[in-house]
Amino acid sequence: MWHLLSSVNKFKVIFAIQIIVMSKILIIGAGRSSSSLIDYLLLQAKENTWQITIADADRNAVEAKITNYTDIATAVEFDVTNALLREKLIAHADFVISMLPAFMHADVAKDCVRLGKHLATASYVSTEMRELDAEAKQKNILLLNECGLDPGIDHASAMKVIHHIKSIGGKITGFKSFCGGLVAPESNDNPWGYKFSWNPRNVVLAGQGTAQFIDNGHLKFIPYNRIYTQIQTIELEGYGKFDGYANRDSISYKEPYELTDTTTMLRGTLRMPGYCKAWNVFVKLGLTDDTYKIKNADSLTYTQLIESFLPDGNAPVKVKLIAFMGTEMDEDVLTKLEYLELFSNKPILLKEGSPAELLQHLLEEKWLLKPGDKDMIVMQHQFEYQLNGAYKQLNSSLVVIGDNEVHTAMAKTVGLPLAISVKNFLTGKFKLYGVQIPTVKEIYEPMLEELETLGVKFMEKEII
Amino acid sequence: MWHLLSSVNKFKVIFAIQIIVMSKILIIGAGRSSSSLIDYLLLQAKENTWQITIADADRNAVEAKITNYTDIATAVEFDVTNALLREKLIAHADFVISMLPAFMHADVAKDCVRLGKHLATASYVSTEMRELDAEAKQKNILLLNECGLDPGIDHASAMKVIHHIKSIGGKITGFKSFCGGLVAPESNDNPWGYKFSWNPRNVVLAGQGTAQFIDNGHLKFIPYNRIYTQIQTIELEGYGKFDGYANRDSISYKEPYELTDTTTMLRGTLRMPGYCKAWNVFVKLGLTDDTYKIKNADSLTYTQLIESFLPDGNAPVKVKLIAFMGTEMDEDVLTKLEYLELFSNKPILLKEGSPAELLQHLLEEKWLLKPGDKDMIVMQHQFEYQLNGAYKQLNSSLVVIGDNEVHTAMAKTVGLPLAISVKNFLTGKFKLYGVQIPTVKEIYEPMLEELETLGVKFMEKEII
Repeated sequence: MWHLLSSVNKFKVIFAIQIIVMSKILIIGAGRSSSSLIDYLLLQAKENTWQITIADADRNAVEAKITNYTDIATAVEFDVTNALLREKLIAHADFVISMLPAFMHADVAKDCVRLGKHLATASYVSTEMRELDAEAKQKNILLLNECGLDPGIDHASAMKVIHHIKSIGGKITGFKSFCGGLVAPESNDNPWGYKFSWNPRNVVLAGQGTAQFIDNGHLKFIPYNRIYTQIQTIELEGYGKFDGYANRDSISYKEPYELTDTTTMLRGTLRMPGYCKAWNVFVKLGLTDDTYKIKNADSLTYTQLIESFLPDGNAPVKVKLIAFMGTEMDEDVLTKLEYLELFSNKPILLKEGSPAELLQHLLEEKWLLKPGDKDMIVMQHQFEYQLNGAYKQLNSSLVVIGDNEVHTAMAKTVGLPLAISVKNFLTGKFKLYGVQIPTVKEIYEPMLEELETLGVKFMEKEII
Repeated sequence: MWHLLSSVNKFKVIFAIQIIVMSKILIIGAGRSSSSLIDYLLLQAKENTWQITIADADRNAVEAKITNYTDIATAVEFDVTNALLREKLIAHADFVISMLPAFMHADVAKDCVRLGKHLATASYVSTEMRELDAEAKQKNILLLNECGLDPGIDHASAMKVIHHIKSIGGKITGFKSFCGGLVAPESNDNPWGYKFSWNPRNVVLAGQGTAQFIDNGHLKFIPYNRIYTQIQTIELEGYGKFDGYANRDSISYKEPYELTDTTTMLRGTLRMPGYCKAWNVFVKLGLTDDTYKIKNADSLTYTQLIESFLPDGNAPVKVKLIAFMGTEMDEDVLTKLEYLELFSNKPILLKEGSPAELLQHLLEEKWLLKPGDKDMIVMQHQFEYQLNGAYKQLNSSLVVIGDNEVHTAMAKTVGLPLAISVKNFLTGKFKLYGVQIPTVKEIYEPMLEELETLGVKFMEKEII
């Protein structure tokens, strides 16, 4: 058929192909982590004949981002509760990228599968997403998930090494992987070594639930009440040491990572040294609880709030807290707490909120990325494997420093893998349907290659 | 109208009155806590011209309970997921008593309000129940809740004292109330001093969330991770000492208890001394987590399960656990853990379960009420008040011992207040509609009076 056409009229054939590859991309949600994603897609839009619609609650903010691209891109005001508008927007698109909070993806995904549109997100595959897999596969619809940083780049970069070691006959016995969204050394001007480069709520609630992993063949569980006390030290040449704590269910990644022989399997989160010991104070107090509201919170100070979680006694709050924490308290922890003005009768400015919300409100003031501040992404995979009878260790590490407080390393590393993979799918670099995550070569190989050209490059180091 | 009728034909009038007061009572759920409720209602049915339908998953068990009352009572096999049958049964009743697990009450209540039937439960008023209040009031439908033991008898007996102190001009400044479903001294033959007299699942999950109370005018919070470490000692003449720990949100009871001047407000749970210190081991380990499932649990022993929650190390599990608990471990705690065979490689017999479910499975074997075993209910209210310029303290205490492992003190104290109040409503002793709890005099006064005749009697003691 192609031969026939091309022999008849070459011009017409080219025209037909261009019609076929022109794609309408819909981005829902243009918050903190979307800047690099949007920039990348806008830059590539003309070449790929994309039309881009960006739907967000703050239409003006989107308009500002697309001023130079009004021929390619359109801003739409979008209320996430407006199901009719969501459906209408999705119906007009070919490919939907959802940057909404994770719990909202399911509704978008249902619309996409029903209306025959592809979808990509940077979030974990939910049960509801998983349930759409069969129908999506049957309709040749892609539901690409876990395609940001963590999850995302971690999967891709780990699988690259795993596939390589296996291809040379190695047997992987141990896998640990750590990732943290931190602050760059040059912008690290508070004792916590932390500023918010992504959703502050997720940082305050981080670690809730029970971490599950395998250590030397033994099933291991760490509940939330001591997740910040059982830390490992991770070292990165040129960047020093970090605290690593176990994160969520690592065991469930044995299968997608094809690590059947692995007797150690751990995924973890990185923080600056000392962060975990200090954060543990909040966990032990109960200040990260998000299950109930404190009414008339604005009649309290943060000092009174701390006191309400402490056992009785007439001593000053600081003295009581030191006694309460016992050996879990030290000078460094105290410095961090004092930086937050916890003992200075600082008033709470929220009328009502859960303890976690009240804490978040304070931290958003204290841990703000200031103009010019740079954030930093650190990731390290640690492999143990046997090759030709020898025991080997290999570390694969990534450091990405942000440009500034808007074009953060977080926005780059969350947005670029997603944007690149959407491009790769639309340009036919991979043809996979149903629920996918970037553990498969067709997805991760071109993604990692292009990420390297954009400065997101892993360094491998043989330890043994 | 009555005068006219009665002058025409006295016989007919009497007949008409009997028709009016005849009531069809539906009891949904006939489990562990229902025995006394059912016995009471069956005994009173003839006199009050009640027809009683008892719907339960186990129809045979119900048949056995009603063999002597086949003219009055009917057993119906009932699957809680069968909404059509539920609706049909409710449509045929005048008054519904739901003894189902608390989360199932909402569906029953919705049917009741829609179909114009009264409802009583022994459970806390849920948000969904609260939302039915206006419609129920408007339709003259009673939705009686919190009318068991705790909540139930606690409300009634506390309010009786509160109203009395107020009536003589007293000002209540402090209120603490403790309740526990325990084992009677004569049947206390395990080191925990505990056997299951009610839902084992609730015992394993007890304390989850954050306890909220007021202490000397200060808001106080205790999160789950240390609820079993911050205990108070409660003493009861003739019964010795008990551990008391704070329970749920005590503050929300200030208003229904009319305790506007009270600067201390605490509701708590009682256990035998030492129970809390030992249970804290499970909390700290993470063994009471119910949020995830451990697969292939039957390939593990309880000793391996404990080990999976412990930090690394080559020492035996018991040694590691002692080191892990530090000062929170002692000989008594160890005796309790050893009684559960936690260090004896006892196999887990469940294929899959959350840590809480696996622990529950073990405890159901170890904490079983054996034939002839008696349980014990202990309740104590502690009042502080000012009267004529003097500071006063008053304790009001209740102890109920069960008859045996079926007619438990728990079944009595949960079922009788409910049964009595249903009778009092049906016989016109109180006329209240909408969502009610037994804090109002019309409900609690006749309830407590009759409970006294049945052996449920509070002893008051002036401390100062």
